[in-house]
Amino acid sequence: MFGEIHEECGVFGAYRVDNAASITYYGLHSLQHRGQEASGIAVSDGENITLQKGKGLTVDVFQREKLDSMVGRLAVGHVRYSTAGGQENENIQPIVSKGHNGSLAIVHNGQIVNEKELRIELENEGAIFQGTSDSEIILHLIQKQKGTLKERVMKTANRIEGAFSFLVMNEDTIYAVRDRHGLRPLSYAKSKDGYVISSETCAFEVMGIYESVDLKPGEIVEFHKGIVKHEFYSTNTDNHMCAMEYIYFARPDSVVEGINVHAFRKATGSILAREDKDLHADIVIGVPDSSLSAAIGYAEEAGIPFETGLIKNRYVGRTFIQPTQAMRDRSVRLKLSPVSSVVKGKSIVMIDDSIVRGTTSRRIVQLLKDAGATQVHVRIASPVITSPCFYGVDTSTKDQLIGAKMSVEEIRDYIHADTLRFMTEEEMKEATHGVGLCLACFNGEYCTKLFSYQEELDK
Amino acid sequence: MFGEIHEECGVFGAYRVDNAASITYYGLHSLQHRGQEASGIAVSDGENITLQKGKGLTVDVFQREKLDSMVGRLAVGHVRYSTAGGQENENIQPIVSKGHNGSLAIVHNGQIVNEKELRIELENEGAIFQGTSDSEIILHLIQKQKGTLKERVMKTANRIEGAFSFLVMNEDTIYAVRDRHGLRPLSYAKSKDGYVISSETCAFEVMGIYESVDLKPGEIVEFHKGIVKHEFYSTNTDNHMCAMEYIYFARPDSVVEGINVHAFRKATGSILAREDKDLHADIVIGVPDSSLSAAIGYAEEAGIPFETGLIKNRYVGRTFIQPTQAMRDRSVRLKLSPVSSVVKGKSIVMIDDSIVRGTTSRRIVQLLKDAGATQVHVRIASPVITSPCFYGVDTSTKDQLIGAKMSVEEIRDYIHADTLRFMTEEEMKEATHGVGLCLACFNGEYCTKLFSYQEELDK
Amino acid sequence: MFGEIHEECGVFGAYRVDNAASITYYGLHSLQHRGQEASGIAVSDGENITLQKGKGLTVDVFQREKLDSMVGRLAVGHVRYSTAGGQENENIQPIVSKGHNGSLAIVHNGQIVNEKELRIELENEGAIFQGTSDSEIILHLIQKQKGTLKERVMKTANRIEGAFSFLVMNEDTIYAVRDRHGLRPLSYAKSKDGYVISSETCAFEVMGIYESVDLKPGEIVEFHKGIVKHEFYSTNTDNHMCAMEYIYFARPDSVVEGINVHAFRKATGSILAREDKDLHADIVIGVPDSSLSAAIGYAEEAGIPFETGLIKNRYVGRTFIQPTQAMRDRSVRLKLSPVSSVVKGKSIVMIDDSIVRGTTSRRIVQLLKDAGATQVHVRIASPVITSPCFYGVDTSTKDQLIGAKMSVEEIRDYIHADTLRFMTEEEMKEATHGVGLCLACFNGEYCTKLFSYQEELDK
Amino acid sequence: MFGEIHEECGVFGAYRVDNAASITYYGLHSLQHRGQEASGIAVSDGENITLQKGKGLTVDVFQREKLDSMVGRLAVGHVRYSTAGGQENENIQPIVSKGHNGSLAIVHNGQIVNEKELRIELENEGAIFQGTSDSEIILHLIQKQKGTLKERVMKTANRIEGAFSFLVMNEDTIYAVRDRHGLRPLSYAKSKDGYVISSETCAFEVMGIYESVDLKPGEIVEFHKGIVKHEFYSTNTDNHMCAMEYIYFARPDSVVEGINVHAFRKATGSILAREDKDLHADIVIGVPDSSLSAAIGYAEEAGIPFETGLIKNRYVGRTFIQPTQAMRDRSVRLKLSPVSSVVKGKSIVMIDDSIVRGTTSRRIVQLLKDAGATQVHVRIASPVITSPCFYGVDTSTKDQLIGAKMSVEEIRDYIHADTLRFMTEEEMKEATHGVGLCLACFNGEYCTKLFSYQEELDK
Repeated sequence: MFGEIHEECGVFGAYRVDNAASITYYGLHSLQHRGQEASGIAVSDGENITLQKGKGLTVDVFQREKLDSMVGRLAVGHVRYSTAGGQENENIQPIVSKGHNGSLAIVHNGQIVNEKELRIELENEGAIFQGTSDSEIILHLIQKQKGTLKERVMKTANRIEGAFSFLVMNEDTIYAVRDRHGLRPLSYAKSKDGYVISSETCAFEVMGIYESVDLKPGEIVEFHKGIVKHEFYSTNTDNHMCAMEYIYFARPDSVVEGINVHAFRKATGSILAREDKDLHADIVIGVPDSSLSAAIGYAEEAGIPFETGLIKNRYVGRTFIQPTQAMRDRSVRLKLSPVSSVVKGKSIVMIDDSIVRGTTSRRIVQLLKDAGATQVHVRIASPVITSPCFYGVDTSTKDQLIGAKMSVEEIRDYIHADTLRFMTEEEMKEATHGVGLCLACFNGEYCTKLFSYQEELDK
Repeated sequence: MFGEIHEECGVFGAYRVDNAASITYYGLHSLQHRGQEASGIAVSDGENITLQKGKGLTVDVFQREKLDSMVGRLAVGHVRYSTAGGQENENIQPIVSKGHNGSLAIVHNGQIVNEKELRIELENEGAIFQGTSDSEIILHLIQKQKGTLKERVMKTANRIEGAFSFLVMNEDTIYAVRDRHGLRPLSYAKSKDGYVISSETCAFEVMGIYESVDLKPGEIVEFHKGIVKHEFYSTNTDNHMCAMEYIYFARPDSVVEGINVHAFRKATGSILAREDKDLHADIVIGVPDSSLSAAIGYAEEAGIPFETGLIKNRYVGRTFIQPTQAMRDRSVRLKLSPVSSVVKGKSIVMIDDSIVRGTTSRRIVQLLKDAGATQVHVRIASPVITSPCFYGVDTSTKDQLIGAKMSVEEIRDYIHADTLRFMTEEEMKEATHGVGLCLACFNGEYCTKLFSYQEELDK
Repeated sequence: MFGEIHEECGVFGAYRVDNAASITYYGLHSLQHRGQEASGIAVSDGENITLQKGKGLTVDVFQREKLDSMVGRLAVGHVRYSTAGGQENENIQPIVSKGHNGSLAIVHNGQIVNEKELRIELENEGAIFQGTSDSEIILHLIQKQKGTLKERVMKTANRIEGAFSFLVMNEDTIYAVRDRHGLRPLSYAKSKDGYVISSETCAFEVMGIYESVDLKPGEIVEFHKGIVKHEFYSTNTDNHMCAMEYIYFARPDSVVEGINVHAFRKATGSILAREDKDLHADIVIGVPDSSLSAAIGYAEEAGIPFETGLIKNRYVGRTFIQPTQAMRDRSVRLKLSPVSSVVKGKSIVMIDDSIVRGTTSRRIVQLLKDAGATQVHVRIASPVITSPCFYGVDTSTKDQLIGAKMSVEEIRDYIHADTLRFMTEEEMKEATHGVGLCLACFNGEYCTKLFSYQEELDK
Repeated sequence: MFGEIHEECGVFGAYRVDNAASITYYGLHSLQHRGQEASGIAVSDGENITLQKGKGLTVDVFQREKLDSMVGRLAVGHVRYSTAGGQENENIQPIVSKGHNGSLAIVHNGQIVNEKELRIELENEGAIFQGTSDSEIILHLIQKQKGTLKERVMKTANRIEGAFSFLVMNEDTIYAVRDRHGLRPLSYAKSKDGYVISSETCAFEVMGIYESVDLKPGEIVEFHKGIVKHEFYSTNTDNHMCAMEYIYFARPDSVVEGINVHAFRKATGSILAREDKDLHADIVIGVPDSSLSAAIGYAEEAGIPFETGLIKNRYVGRTFIQPTQAMRDRSVRLKLSPVSSVVKGKSIVMIDDSIVRGTTSRRIVQLLKDAGATQVHVRIASPVITSPCFYGVDTSTKDQLIGAKMSVEEIRDYIHADTLRFMTEEEMKEATHGVGLCLACFNGEYCTKLFSYQEELDK
């Protein structure tokens, strides 16, 4: 909901591809919406792994000179959103270990729920951690297993529980691994000269590749000696793709589990409109950017004009100054501006993808009314968020979630909407045509044990 | 057309407003779409004028500390797009002159056509120029006139010909001046404690101000001793608002000469659709961002679904690396990505705002066909560009304009569109409900003498 | 006196020299002691003048790429120390004017005393000033004269009064000009392929050139069509080389008016020792770096061991944090450290080049006593500073000069020295073997009218 | 020898000191001569350890804001010189491990000779290394031992062989450890409110502290609950202070093993002069900065004037551009300039601290002769370097050492000196008054086993 939810990462890999670092740079650029705080690439020339990483957008971290110095045909890269407490440089990925008989680079998207237990176990066995990222845990687990690298990676995948899609690269091989619940997406595609691996398919389309393969839950894919081998490290699998990937994170041009994200969003708008037969509004607007598809779908179904009622300021820059006290309550305005000539005197249906804390929704409704809207009917293209996520989405703690504390009517009143409606879970499922979803943030039904997070939840 | 046309500037002023530098910062942030290369603010505390400027986005040039150090209740600011040859620091505005009996700060949007003649005249009289910006000329002209500051500004406005909206500030007064043809917009509004002046009204809406006054062609407005005085420095005026402001530059939430920009764009789409009764396409798409409004208008009128067929990558960063040779021909992809699941197997109407050189259009059509579109019908929401602009728009020289060299059918063939249609001038006028427009880039009818530029044109 | 006095500038030029920008870069690097705040180079390729400048050391402002982009065989460059009020970018030199029939670049070292009068006169004639540097005045004066460039430069040199050594470059010629009192040094030398011009000869020695020509007071030297022509723009000349160049500013390896700076300083130490026949100290130390030569001279003459009693920290970096309140009184320590094992239990002669405000001297004496020195006899290798300088040295205003307020005995008491002695003017002259000196800061005898500065002085 | 030898590190610690991070900042500033490539500080507030580090000088890595954010009364810091292959960010110290029951920060000066063996052993037990620094090994060893932290640190100190002085900090305790051969210095001192620990005593003098305690070889000092406890982790100790600390690295104001560094250097000069009774030179000069003390000692003993014959350019900046091909052979000039008026026509004794590859010496002699010196008698204030160092000094590999390949006469011929003499080992010992020295680089007698480095040496 407009800056309130954050995905934690995107991963990209390139196997036997010329200028692997450059290709990864472009791939990460396409995944930038999944994380803007830091970016890194590790490249292998067959003998050595070189690492470059830093804070900022991929295009700012990597200059031409830096990229040119990264020679090799294998690479893994990462974009990262970091939560408040974890902005240290130590957590920027890839994490690389340098051993006497070789190096390993790892990039990881997701969140491991038995992270605390594993960390303690590893430390008790003498491991030291320099950062707080899950990737370091995965690296330690791989290191302490016995067997070939593939066996060690598979054993590791069986030790960790939660949401994960990770890539492991040594000098000449890449392994791609997806968790057994399928919580986070991961796909690969054949490129002209090799293979590319990505959190989202949009990175392939940018390269002119329109066909790709999704990893299945519990699957490990090996890229070695030019051959791609699929294998399952676990047979205990199920299908729980994160619903928020469809609702908010993924780029509209990505295809997640066979469903195009834009098409999904349009369908949610359409479904919302279906139930609004009696609502006679003048125009339909969406909160940019993620809710525009749903608004278009709603407008089409309802036969009400779709309008551009809110404009998003694109020029965020590196350092946006917090507004002074006097401007504080108007801070939303700096990022989002109402089009008064569009909304003035109008009864409006405003589509948003979700409501987290309610404060932003409240401000946007206010913006529209200040600009002259007579009525604002808020329609949310997802169910009420009632529970925190432990699978890699930074929503909020339970006590900050307005949906955990208020009824829909109370929320409506709080945000000053004339009417308010959310989607049901059933409607969500309809929009994904039966793809198995994780709806834990809506219904509290987590598909894994929560380990130490259970306590946090119980509070 | 997607990165091919550039406006040169935006200006903002604040008069008797608390924290004038901060307000100007927010104002410039709203005008950032008019120029992203450099930004500057001059502030007066009643006795001294302080200047800060630099390359980059407003939010990157000004840190909190820098803003806090700029004390005062009067300010003028500027955002700038700089053409290839003029990126020197000397040209970043405001330009400030420091004299023994006071300072003057000037910010300017537009282009002066008798610039070369004035420059020679001034130099012959002993003036020295440190940069190549028009603002320095204006400053010199003001300085050499006799009389009060207001008289000198008015005389200056009568000496310069072309497109201009400029602000002049001394320690306690601001003058806002608009050219006598009304080529560039300029408005002001009452804020809570004073007045704000802006190239576009969107900057007011961001501040919660929904009413504003446009300067008329040939007008000078004085902000002095708390009073606002309107006056005409010339009676020889006409109405020639730059059509490109509506078509491409202005933000959709701005109101230009009483017409909302989004509404204008939607109307152009609607008019285009009106003539396409016999075209039976599956979907309508727009080239983001400037052509989306027109596409929505087209879809509504034609009764064909509006779809998100192209995604723009928002994360441009400070330094985007030029793709390597191998990636060269795919460079458009990095900024614009087709949604293959939307366009595959579809007959598409693609709305774009204009065609300049044709190369980008050609690439976008190719993108869509590669992604599976069966037909691409290109509709341009403006007439054919046949002539260069000398009023502040960086289109291209005549020999680079595809419309100056090819017929519409030849252009269609070049860009590989299935069909191609432009708007007529009459249709443009219809969409602006009779606002007087400068259509020189379409029809070669310049509303001023061109002075030294005439030669350039005649070549 | 250790960070209390500042020279304002150094200039360097290269005429018909391959890679003139690189040569100037190295030249400025050798002159860096004359100014560390900003640096700039303008280069001419015979047709155009390119300018690059910025804040910081020459080696930090210019990267390889930037230098390589500056093609041409003529160049002028500048290093600058800026006084508190004038750190704006507008004052960084070279200042370049860009006219329709050519450009001019100017670099200037010194201070013009009729600056205010000229500024008013020029402004009244319509000139505008963007900065506060003298260079802009010189540029304006040149521009408004009639005649050839050489004639205009000569007329300009006759209009300005004070201390100046400046270079003017157009596309194919360089003029070097020195004030008619000879207050600031300026020399040139034949290089392998052309000529180099410099504020100090040390820049030549760095290039392996050991022979150079000093400009005489009132002289202009033209470098044009490969020929060097000397001419006098004034016959009303005298010899007043700034004594501080010898005492503090110039690098020890420079030769100023035929006298090597190190040799001069050693001689002052020797002269000081001559008068101290009855002083029986254990060791002689100098305040690094400028007073070491004098200390060596003293030790040699007195037959007392020269010791390293104070160590200067070389690693100043770009941004030295001001010590917290608790550390405030120890701030000198961070730059200067006593060698306790050297000074402990010793009676010391401490040589310093001058005393300005007295605060630093007081702290250094304290440092030495804290470290165990039993006696500290301070000897100053120059007379008492009693008057401000208006010729380009940033000492202090009169009320800050301890020598203007206290007797020698009072100063001795204030700085807690056991004994204190300054040189006499006669001794200074002895050390320069009769070179004509400006001793205004010691005796208040200014060799020019002071114009508006007279008032400042009279206060 | 003027930029050819590099020390690898300096460490500083603060225990129960207000603003420990600021104090450490000033301490590291005093140790900057031991490493200029990177700098870092870890601070503990009793509960958490905060880490900040980066490339560059201490004063550039730490801004006021950053320091202020580092709250706590315990801190350890590090300055680092990094060899060509190890400039990665991963190697910047402190290295901090973050465990579920606490954090550890480590800073280390020296070189561990059984590093490779330990690394393999640790990796085989599952450890992963993210960098290549010895500190990570020490951290791993501490982590895998059993017992209290002190016991683990002591066991670790017994596992590592070579040169080391390291500090380990957890939330409330600091341990300082010195290797059992005493190869690297480490001292601590009582400050007003707590204790400070430093590689060199000069850091204490800067704070006005003139008394300090050296750790003995094999000693561990615990700072815990306000108490300082000394203990030996090994009884198998000997005294082998690195001779290069005296000759080149340490600051002249430091006291190493009771001997002031400046006094040592002066003594070496004096000893060199003693053997030169028959040499009748005109002047004595030293290569700045490290050889000036010796030159002063020589001059005093020989009764020949000490002169400033070479000037060092202080303004190195962050990025010094490599001279172009044409300037290549003159590159020494940019850092070192002869004073021609001092050396011209003179017979010179030039004191340098050492000769490594001979190329720099050759260039300096050439500089002096070009500037007019008639004779250059080179005296080296240390013996001939014949063997590489494995204890933390980056001299060179054996095949690059001129002393390993040539006789003294051949070296003299190569560097074009008129005469050349080195000190003997006996004379070195005389200058240190019997302090036990490591002279391995002179005589190849290493005080430890060399493990994997033995092979390197045998080649």
